Amino acid sequence: MCELLGMNANVPTDIVFSVSGLFQRGGFTGPHKDGWGITFYEGKGYRTFKDHQSSCHSPVAQFVQGYPIKSEVIVAHIRQANRGNVSLVNTHPFTRELWGKYWTYAHNGQLKGYRNLKTGAYRPVGETDSEWAFCWILHQLSLRYPKCPSNWPAVFKYVASLADELRQRGVFNMLLSDGQFVMAYCSTQLHWVTRRAPFGKAKLLDQDIEINFQEHTQPGDIVSVIATQPLTGNETWHRIESGNYELFYLGERIT
Amino acid sequence: MCELLGMNANVPTDIVFSVSGLFQRGGFTGPHKDGWGITFYEGKGYRTFKDHQSSCHSPVAQFVQGYPIKSEVIVAHIRQANRGNVSLVNTHPFTRELWGKYWTYAHNGQLKGYRNLKTGAYRPVGETDSEWAFCWILHQLSLRYPKCPSNWPAVFKYVASLADELRQRGVFNMLLSDGQFVMAYCSTQLHWVTRRAPFGKAKLLDQDIEINFQEHTQPGDIVSVIATQPLTGNETWHRIESGNYELFYLGERIT
Repeated sequence: MCELLGMNANVPTDIVFSVSGLFQRGGFTGPHKDGWGITFYEGKGYRTFKDHQSSCHSPVAQFVQGYPIKSEVIVAHIRQANRGNVSLVNTHPFTRELWGKYWTYAHNGQLKGYRNLKTGAYRPVGETDSEWAFCWILHQLSLRYPKCPSNWPAVFKYVASLADELRQRGVFNMLLSDGQFVMAYCSTQLHWVTRRAPFGKAKLLDQDIEINFQEHTQPGDIVSVIATQPLTGNETWHRIESGNYELFYLGERIT
Repeated sequence: MCELLGMNANVPTDIVFSVSGLFQRGGFTGPHKDGWGITFYEGKGYRTFKDHQSSCHSPVAQFVQGYPIKSEVIVAHIRQANRGNVSLVNTHPFTRELWGKYWTYAHNGQLKGYRNLKTGAYRPVGETDSEWAFCWILHQLSLRYPKCPSNWPAVFKYVASLADELRQRGVFNMLLSDGQFVMAYCSTQLHWVTRRAPFGKAKLLDQDIEINFQEHTQPGDIVSVIATQPLTGNETWHRIESGNYELFYLGERIT
């Protein structure tokens, strides 16, 4: 299995604190040693740092933890391989273009019988069930909406119906973003927290690090963080029920 | 204008020496201060490091120069913006999937009248003529070869005919790779050199750095490097004639 981390904020926000917690689980406090990746959106563009080395040993992971890239939307993943060997091509997140936007996706779980899902012009490059499911979702979206849609909550509701189908084939926890919205679909486990004023202190569960968000924020900042398991011990993380999803926009849950 | 750098090798090879020379031109010995990017293929996968900050000041560029990622195929670019503002979405290289392979592209030059080129399912996300031309090339390829082709030299010959059309609209120097082949199309300026045994010393033109390749290579290694302008002063760089292209595979020029 793997772990997911997502962030959605109303101002460019530094994710280093949460990433540090996640990366500890990449071979140190957790078994997810088979690569990691993190995608930062900056406007309509994005950049992805990834490595097939475990996040607790990867030099690129060290760099990412020391260089506070500010972003409004982040999707990250640490991998414990089940289907597909340990290599860069199988490392999440995956990003593809649809309707002139970059879509980024990460999956936790395992699917059976996915190879009969039609992916159309979105061909998988690697060998994972995860990438195949992503290509299928994009293909279904392109069929349902041949032109760029405008009602985004309806689009994500449709994605949730696709995710429901995938969940019938195994475990399908997913983060999906177009650079503005972040969708979190829960099959077995996914949690979220929203931070806003008055900001307090938070302490990582996986490392002896505490942060006082008040020192790093403005009063109007709103930041939601989504993770497979809660990353901090003294905040109220909400569990998403199996088969449900949450949609985040400008830092707020809007579902 | 911008500068291009490509590498094609028969063994995973560290490009730090050449990248260091190129990055100096990103705001230090050259005016290309509007971002940079480098894509490393590792098997069928890839990772791209990019920044809209100038390469001679970017912390990510510093990291890339200090961390020798070994790769058989590299495409890099430093940008001096003409069309499209300075932002991550407009920063080369661009990567898209076609036939289940990741294609990476970087362009130097400027095109007029490109907005009437049909891009089909390959929609540009940013505002550059460069990305638009890339989407058009991929769309044309997908029309010409609806299924994955097998005669790759013929595919690149067809790409060259598309590049000939683009050159009618302005300046179109291009690097294009599928992760195995590297194609270098010259509109105005592009040079290449192949390094093989017996390896000698090379000295960067843009920085007081000399390398003895013999200390870093095995006798069977073959590495070709393509750059807008020669990066070293004591090697024989070949100029590609305007309207011509070269194709590299396993480190060798095969055109």
